[in-house]
Amino acid sequence: MTSLPDIDGLLAPKSVAIIGASDDPTRIGGRPIAAMLRSGYKGRILPVNPKRETVQGVPCYASVADLPEAPDAALIAVPAKLVPETITALGEKGCKAATLFSAGFAETGADGEAAQRDLVALAAQHGLRLLGPNTLGVYNVDIGYYGTFSSSLDTGYPLPGNIGIASQSGAFGAHLGALARDRRLGSSILMTTGNEADISVADAIRWMAESDTTQVICAYMEAINDAPAFLAALDAARAAGKPVFALKAGRSAVGSQAAASHTASLTGDAAVADAVLEDHGAIVVRDPQTMMDYAYVASKRVFPKSHSLGVITVSGGAGIVTSDEAERIGFPMPAMPEAAQSRLKEILPYASPANPLDCTAQALNDPSLLETFTRAALEEGGYGAILSFLTYVAGSPALCETILEATRPLREAYPDRIIAFCALGDPEVLRRYDEAGILVFDDPCRAARALDMACRLGAARERAVRERPGALDVDLPSATPNEAEAQRLLGEAGIPAAPQDAVKSAEAATAAADRMGYPVVLKILSPDILHKSDIGAVRLNLGDADAVREAYAAIEEAVAKKAPAARIEGMLVAKQLSGGVECLMGVSRDPTFGPVAVFGLGGIFVEILNDVAMKPCPFDEETAREMILSIRGAGILQGARGQAPADIDALARMLSKLSRFAAGAGERLVSIDLNPVVAMPEGEGAFALDAVIEVEEGAK
Amino acid sequence: MTSLPDIDGLLAPKSVAIIGASDDPTRIGGRPIAAMLRSGYKGRILPVNPKRETVQGVPCYASVADLPEAPDAALIAVPAKLVPETITALGEKGCKAATLFSAGFAETGADGEAAQRDLVALAAQHGLRLLGPNTLGVYNVDIGYYGTFSSSLDTGYPLPGNIGIASQSGAFGAHLGALARDRRLGSSILMTTGNEADISVADAIRWMAESDTTQVICAYMEAINDAPAFLAALDAARAAGKPVFALKAGRSAVGSQAAASHTASLTGDAAVADAVLEDHGAIVVRDPQTMMDYAYVASKRVFPKSHSLGVITVSGGAGIVTSDEAERIGFPMPAMPEAAQSRLKEILPYASPANPLDCTAQALNDPSLLETFTRAALEEGGYGAILSFLTYVAGSPALCETILEATRPLREAYPDRIIAFCALGDPEVLRRYDEAGILVFDDPCRAARALDMACRLGAARERAVRERPGALDVDLPSATPNEAEAQRLLGEAGIPAAPQDAVKSAEAATAAADRMGYPVVLKILSPDILHKSDIGAVRLNLGDADAVREAYAAIEEAVAKKAPAARIEGMLVAKQLSGGVECLMGVSRDPTFGPVAVFGLGGIFVEILNDVAMKPCPFDEETAREMILSIRGAGILQGARGQAPADIDALARMLSKLSRFAAGAGERLVSIDLNPVVAMPEGEGAFALDAVIEVEEGAK
Repeated sequence: MTSLPDIDGLLAPKSVAIIGASDDPTRIGGRPIAAMLRSGYKGRILPVNPKRETVQGVPCYASVADLPEAPDAALIAVPAKLVPETITALGEKGCKAATLFSAGFAETGADGEAAQRDLVALAAQHGLRLLGPNTLGVYNVDIGYYGTFSSSLDTGYPLPGNIGIASQSGAFGAHLGALARDRRLGSSILMTTGNEADISVADAIRWMAESDTTQVICAYMEAINDAPAFLAALDAARAAGKPVFALKAGRSAVGSQAAASHTASLTGDAAVADAVLEDHGAIVVRDPQTMMDYAYVASKRVFPKSHSLGVITVSGGAGIVTSDEAERIGFPMPAMPEAAQSRLKEILPYASPANPLDCTAQALNDPSLLETFTRAALEEGGYGAILSFLTYVAGSPALCETILEATRPLREAYPDRIIAFCALGDPEVLRRYDEAGILVFDDPCRAARALDMACRLGAARERAVRERPGALDVDLPSATPNEAEAQRLLGEAGIPAAPQDAVKSAEAATAAADRMGYPVVLKILSPDILHKSDIGAVRLNLGDADAVREAYAAIEEAVAKKAPAARIEGMLVAKQLSGGVECLMGVSRDPTFGPVAVFGLGGIFVEILNDVAMKPCPFDEETAREMILSIRGAGILQGARGQAPADIDALARMLSKLSRFAAGAGERLVSIDLNPVVAMPEGEGAFALDAVIEVEEGAK
Repeated sequence: MTSLPDIDGLLAPKSVAIIGASDDPTRIGGRPIAAMLRSGYKGRILPVNPKRETVQGVPCYASVADLPEAPDAALIAVPAKLVPETITALGEKGCKAATLFSAGFAETGADGEAAQRDLVALAAQHGLRLLGPNTLGVYNVDIGYYGTFSSSLDTGYPLPGNIGIASQSGAFGAHLGALARDRRLGSSILMTTGNEADISVADAIRWMAESDTTQVICAYMEAINDAPAFLAALDAARAAGKPVFALKAGRSAVGSQAAASHTASLTGDAAVADAVLEDHGAIVVRDPQTMMDYAYVASKRVFPKSHSLGVITVSGGAGIVTSDEAERIGFPMPAMPEAAQSRLKEILPYASPANPLDCTAQALNDPSLLETFTRAALEEGGYGAILSFLTYVAGSPALCETILEATRPLREAYPDRIIAFCALGDPEVLRRYDEAGILVFDDPCRAARALDMACRLGAARERAVRERPGALDVDLPSATPNEAEAQRLLGEAGIPAAPQDAVKSAEAATAAADRMGYPVVLKILSPDILHKSDIGAVRLNLGDADAVREAYAAIEEAVAKKAPAARIEGMLVAKQLSGGVECLMGVSRDPTFGPVAVFGLGGIFVEILNDVAMKPCPFDEETAREMILSIRGAGILQGARGQAPADIDALARMLSKLSRFAAGAGERLVSIDLNPVVAMPEGEGAFALDAVIEVEEGAK
């Protein structure tokens, strides 16, 4: 079925043993059997229970050893203390994949954690892959396989379809499955990974990326335990053209705390995780409704090349509300070409056919208007997505056929565009549109947001995925270097500093200043003083040699007083640049994702507004430029307030170089701070005025 | 029924004449009759049609004059050209309210506008109030009155309930009605006002504020044509304890354009409208879904005093996602008291009962856990709202009764709190919770947002509505004054400037500077130069008398060159203040709402980030303080970046005074700009460093 035979047995088994099988279809050991019997699972069901001849009418085996074959999958529903011997028996039988419903492991504390580690080791001895422990299990709708005891099935079974769901949390994953079902969205797979002792959400994504039945992937994570595997799985999904909608929980203080106490894992910094997931093509969402809205649109597999929206409406009011939302989210709604507008106005004189195209309530009396307006929007407007606000009109059984006749030929003629209705009324009527390939929403703003996602994705696919540039060859010192040394290292990597010199006396300082021209900056050089300004060890705006001499003495005095133990390696004289825009660049090593670069404007933009862009290292200049332009305050760099535009090219070059430097610096790099970086006017470059490279001491 | 007899006849008539009545229940003149017959309207239906004896089985009259009585309401469904004679006939008959379905008036251009004005005048002669023209009409669910031809009824009738809807747009209003119906929310009134030649959304709100059957008001507006009436209606609704959810469309460029071409009206600036509506207690929403979510919660009429959320969950994952959303929207989720946590941990050792309170899947086996945890959250947590994530568990018919038994006693014991479920499954099962007073949502984040609204509203009700302070007595000059004069006027009103003097020579300037102490600022005084810096007519940082003299000459030269025609009234010497935070304050007269005050931080905060707060004038100091603290950059005033906190009290005093000055300045006041205002450290005051008062020239 896929090229991932290691977990094929888990997700699409031809035979399944249930250890701790129960005749009672409401018990954990009984639910999966009842579900598979109900849904016509074609594989072999092999109950194991020493006390019974049959279970729910299926012949039962006394022990794993007595099974007539090595099952593709085993479901383990025995108390925690019996799990090790069950694993051994399964391993000896030749089973390769087991789902561990049993709880009482890492989620309960240190003892449980140790027991869980032992289990993994035991399973590994036999080449047995483990799902769980503390998992609700898996289902595979296509083959009727229900290796799960989720009570979500009590309120109905999933409909078949192409949406796959992977969730660390069992109940939340099952909630997503039930949400899809209640909205009548078809799903393929639900896999909940629980404690992730072995198999993780990453494995689930990787498997679904290769599966024929899954085309859309929904993933819920509390922690990402193996980042490289996770990102590789996202890359595989992107390569397969399957969008991944990712909900990474734990962004709030309360949420993070709850996450830590929940599935025995610590969550990383949410903003970093979002940046990294998006960098690998995932679409980050924050709530189940948005996830399902997006999955619904994506399930139709139409991702238009044009990121633009045309709105057809029978209500001017709805057109306005939809336009307002489109503007808010940055979904372009260009006007129809003038010629098309004139033509439409001839057909319907009171129409306002710019965009929104208001075909008024007149469309009720004359449904050909709907066809005319929609065709014009597709053909002449060229919009990636068309959203028609038809409200209760479309929901009317009397008008359904007419509206379908008007829309179906267009649906067929423009297979690469999205056509969606905002419609209310009889669910059976609305379903007919959906079956005809027309998306149906009850809220025009939700519809606009979901269509925006699909068009953005379609437009992004038109651009090749960027090759990552290579890491630079970096020879990191064995400990945190002083600023001059940091600037030298960065300079070698092509990250420019302002003209500067390291000096050891006031005379050398004035000589250097004379050479580079005034005004200059003077600051202490010491590996022990990271925040120089705080102790008065930086002097700005020194206009002549006297000022430099005076400053030299003052800094010496301040350091002697405030940091008497610091190792002093002299001072740095640097040319003071003026007329630029202050920015900051930095890198910090995220414990999960490695070095992540940050860009922002200086001062309040970062400190008060948290207005920064982040990307995992390394990345190219084009990516760096996008980061720079993505911050809210980007207007300042582009020449707001009558200023000359800043040298964004130079900033992008510098930021990309910094990311490649960080990628090459290895695991001992803790952080880099270039603060401030001054971006001079266009063509005049960008320079780091201060640089700190923090290095973990130890063997190089 | 209400104390608004003028439109009682329109909204709750005891008799209704249909002019242009049709036997065909799908025609405009037939639909209202069919709907009223179907829904058992108890009033008298009086069809008028010269060609028929009966209409849909109801006796018909040949003309208005032939009617057996003066009808409370008339529905006019005749072509535009027949409308005037119909109005006259109705007026002569003694009818006091008519709904004008007919289109072809102001929405079609200048001719239509003139015809519409004539109609209003004609109707006024007879004391006849008009709804429309170009309206879908009105319905009143309670009495089965359907004075509307909306085809939304083809997909079902509204359920009775306490949600009233007023909408300028017919189709959008009917969409809201259908949305409520499809979500099984009960409604009382739908009134669509179309061209608003006479009766407006404001009248509808005012009527609903007094009506017994309506407790929640949803309002959709494209333009607010009579602001005082509209705001008075909002005040009436607030006084009656009825929340108004207001959707004001036309905030985007595209949206505003569409609005203008739609109901023949121009929309004001969206941010101003939002600020004014909120100032009068309305809750501004941007999409129909949010409006209905809010109306749903409000329809239960529970508005907790505590703005806090307790989350009970059977899924750790869902708890995290909900906490994340609560943090994002600023909905506090304080932790449970330690003692309560310990007690709950004894009952369920693996629970994490801080908040969210995770009672784990164990609650499935032992529903008493749900009761214990919920009771603890209500009693010991004291949360205003409880949201229980029960997902498909609650949707199960098998568990519904158990869950109801666990929750009903708590619902009764805590009538002043909200209890909500996030639940999926059988709609009939979910309805039973709703009937028991438990709110039901399918998405936990949407639920959190709606509960947040209700708790904010409840908390706000605990505070008295603030009395507006009086307008100041202002003697505005007959034309835009120069800066010295502006500062003097403002100074008299208690709005302080930095120490300053108007001078007419360089000698007088140096004398003044000597008196106030250096450094000083020097700038031109001219009523003709509003943007002094732009032409070099402001000099900062003058450190001694020589610098002042030099600057005086330089400004004279600059003005002679760049603004040779300007009337020059000397220069202003002002003490240069340093060490403060730069802010700006201003007032502008909105064409709809009158003077609106604005506060922001200086520079990029306003220019790039549009980070401002607005309020209609006048307002008190407490309100001013809230405005100041509501901007995103407020941290800067509170002492971010190691700075001393700024004198926010002084800013608030100044801003409130400014609002009272603007309120007293009358209609000739165009705008006031105090930019910059410098807020000195706490206790040291705030001062306007520049002041422009723009006055419309004309008779005082």
